[in-house]
Amino acid sequence: MNAMSTSAPSRRRAQRDLSTAPLLVAARGGRPSRVPVWFMRQAGRSLPEYRALREGVPMLQSCFDPEMLAEITLQPVRRHGVDAAILYSDIVVPPYAAGVGIEIVPGTGPVIAEPVRDAAAVAALPELAPEQVAPVAEGVRLLVERLGDTPLIGFAGAPFTLASYLIEGGPSRHFEHTKALMRSEPELWHTLADRLATMALTFLKVQLDAGADAVQLFDSWAGALSLREYREFVLPHSAKVLRGLAEYDVPRIHFGVGTGELLTAMREAGADVVGVDWRIPLDEAVRRLTADGSPAPAVQGNLDPALLGASWPVIEAEVRRIVAEGRAAAGHIFNLGHGVPPGTDPAVLTRVAELVHSLEP
Amino acid sequence: MNAMSTSAPSRRRAQRDLSTAPLLVAARGGRPSRVPVWFMRQAGRSLPEYRALREGVPMLQSCFDPEMLAEITLQPVRRHGVDAAILYSDIVVPPYAAGVGIEIVPGTGPVIAEPVRDAAAVAALPELAPEQVAPVAEGVRLLVERLGDTPLIGFAGAPFTLASYLIEGGPSRHFEHTKALMRSEPELWHTLADRLATMALTFLKVQLDAGADAVQLFDSWAGALSLREYREFVLPHSAKVLRGLAEYDVPRIHFGVGTGELLTAMREAGADVVGVDWRIPLDEAVRRLTADGSPAPAVQGNLDPALLGASWPVIEAEVRRIVAEGRAAAGHIFNLGHGVPPGTDPAVLTRVAELVHSLEP
Repeated sequence: MNAMSTSAPSRRRAQRDLSTAPLLVAARGGRPSRVPVWFMRQAGRSLPEYRALREGVPMLQSCFDPEMLAEITLQPVRRHGVDAAILYSDIVVPPYAAGVGIEIVPGTGPVIAEPVRDAAAVAALPELAPEQVAPVAEGVRLLVERLGDTPLIGFAGAPFTLASYLIEGGPSRHFEHTKALMRSEPELWHTLADRLATMALTFLKVQLDAGADAVQLFDSWAGALSLREYREFVLPHSAKVLRGLAEYDVPRIHFGVGTGELLTAMREAGADVVGVDWRIPLDEAVRRLTADGSPAPAVQGNLDPALLGASWPVIEAEVRRIVAEGRAAAGHIFNLGHGVPPGTDPAVLTRVAELVHSLEP
Repeated sequence: MNAMSTSAPSRRRAQRDLSTAPLLVAARGGRPSRVPVWFMRQAGRSLPEYRALREGVPMLQSCFDPEMLAEITLQPVRRHGVDAAILYSDIVVPPYAAGVGIEIVPGTGPVIAEPVRDAAAVAALPELAPEQVAPVAEGVRLLVERLGDTPLIGFAGAPFTLASYLIEGGPSRHFEHTKALMRSEPELWHTLADRLATMALTFLKVQLDAGADAVQLFDSWAGALSLREYREFVLPHSAKVLRGLAEYDVPRIHFGVGTGELLTAMREAGADVVGVDWRIPLDEAVRRLTADGSPAPAVQGNLDPALLGASWPVIEAEVRRIVAEGRAAAGHIFNLGHGVPPGTDPAVLTRVAELVHSLEP
C-alpha cells in the first residue's frame, strides 16, 4: 500500500529491531500483535511528573534541553504503556531555533515578536541549520537508547499551521491575516510556505538521522480551509516535507483537526497514515480515502478528547466502537482526535491504553 | 419543496406585501428578481454608527431597548442595501430575560454566573414568559413599520449552542463540560435541551407574532459534534423549535459552522434553508442534501468572512463563484459562512452586496 520496504531497515535504525513493533506494523498496513495506541500531547500538562519537571523552566527552554526533553518524552510511555513515544517539542521550535523572536506564553501559546506579513518579513525569515537543533538531536539519541522496543515518532508542524502562527502573531480563531495574505498575495504565500517546508524538512531529518522511527506532520489548523484552498496553497508544501523524507523509509503520519473534507488530499501529500479527528468515524474515513479506487489506508485517531472527562462506560463504548471501525483500515493506530486536554485525569488514559490492548486487532 | 404555502400569507403578515421580496422568494425555492444577500452579524461592530450608538450601553441592555435594537437592526439595511434585516439580539437573550445570571463581557462574550452542570441547576432553570421579552416584540413592531419592503429575519440560538454557553459558563473551544454531560448523563442533557428548545420557541414566536417574516436558528457550534452525536442529542431539540413554527408559514433558516457532515440532519430538523460555511461549496452542499433523493434545497452562505480582508479581486472572484455554484440550489441566499468580523471595512460589505445584485440569479 505504500512505497516503504518492510524488509530492509536502513543502516541508521539497525541498532534496534522494531520490525514487530505494533505501531510500525500497523502504520505499514500490516497486522500487528495488538492495536497500537498513543495519545497526541501525551507528554505534557496532564502528567504531574511533567508539571514537576517543568516547574520554573520556560517551555522553549525545555525543548532544547536534551535530558529534559528525553525525560518528558519518556514519562507517558512509562506511565501509560503506550506503543509509541512522540518527541516532546512545539510547532514553533524550528523558527525559534533559527532565530525568530518567539515566546510561549502560558495560557496563550506562542507569541511572535514581529508577525510575518509582508515581503520584507518573509525575505528576512532565517533558514534553519541542523546545528541549531543539535540539542533536539541529542535528546533523540538519548531516547533511542532508553526506549527499548518502543518506537519514537518525530514531530514537526506543517507549513500552513506554522505559517498561521507567524502571520497572525500567535494562536488564532479565524486566520484572517493568514487567509488574506494567502489569497491576495499568492506568490508571497508560496515563498513563505516553501521556506517553512524547508525548515520542517530540516527539523524532521535531524530527528530521523538521530534515530526517530516515524514522523508525524501536524497541520493542526488545515481544517479551516476549503479543499480548493488546501490543494492550491497547502498541499504542495506539505508534500515537499513528506515526500522529502521518502529516502528514510519510515512511516509518515499526517494529521489535522476538522479535516473530513481534506483527507484524500492530505494522503496525496505523501502520508502513509492519515489522522482523523472525532467528526467522522474511521470506517467513513476509509470509505472516502478509497472512493477513487485507492488502496485502503492506515488511519489514526477518532476518540474525542473532550470525552476523556465523561464517565468510563461512555469512554469504553467509544474505544470499542473505534477499534471495531478501525478494522476497515489497512492498519489502525488508536489515538485521540486531537491532543490530550491539560486537565485530563492521566488514570483515564492508562485505562484507555489497557482497554485498547485487550481488544482483538 | 417544502410545506410552506406561497399563496396564502397569514393574517398577521398581511400588513406588508412581501410576496416578491427576493429573500422570501429564494427561501421558498422560487426564482427571485435578484440574488438576495444579507450578512450574518451585519448589525454590529463593523459599523461606526453602531459603535457610536452603543457607546456606554452594555450589550444586553441594548437588546432590550426597543428603539435602540430597531435602529441597530436598520443600520446595515440602510448602509448596504441588503435584502433582509436580521434582528439585533444575542444567543443568551432568552435565558437572560428569564432571569439567568448572564453578563456579556466585551472581548470575551457571555459569562454565566453559575454554570448549569447538574440536575439541580437544570431544574432551577427558569422558563421564559413572553412578557419577559416584550421589549424585543416592541422593537420588532417598530422594525416592521420602518423596514418598507425589506423582510425581517427573527433570531434565536439553537438548544445545543445555547446549552454549551450555559454548561461551559461562557465561550468554549472544546466543549468539554458540554460533551461530558451530554454523553455521561443523557437524560439530564435531554431535559436541559428540551427546556432550551421551549425557550427558543417562545422567543421566536414572540418575534413572529410581532411581525418577523422569517427566522434563523443559530446552532453556531453544532459542527463540534459527530453526525451520530448530532442525531441523538441535538436534532430532536432543534426540530422541536423549527417544527414548532410550522403554523407561521415563514421560511426557517438553520445555520452552524463546520457542519459539512451535518447538513442533511440539520435540514431534517425542519429547515427550509440550509446554512453552509466556507468549507464546502454550495453545489457540493446541494449534492449532499439531495443524495438520498430529497428535492433540491434552498441554501445560504459560503463566503469565508476571513476573506473580507483580502484584496477586492479575490473577493470578487469568490462572490462570482458562489453565485454560480448557488444556481445548483432551488433557492440561493447570498451570505457569509459565519458572522462579519468586527474589524471588517463596511465599504467592502456594501461592495459585495452591489456585486451580488449585479449578477444573474
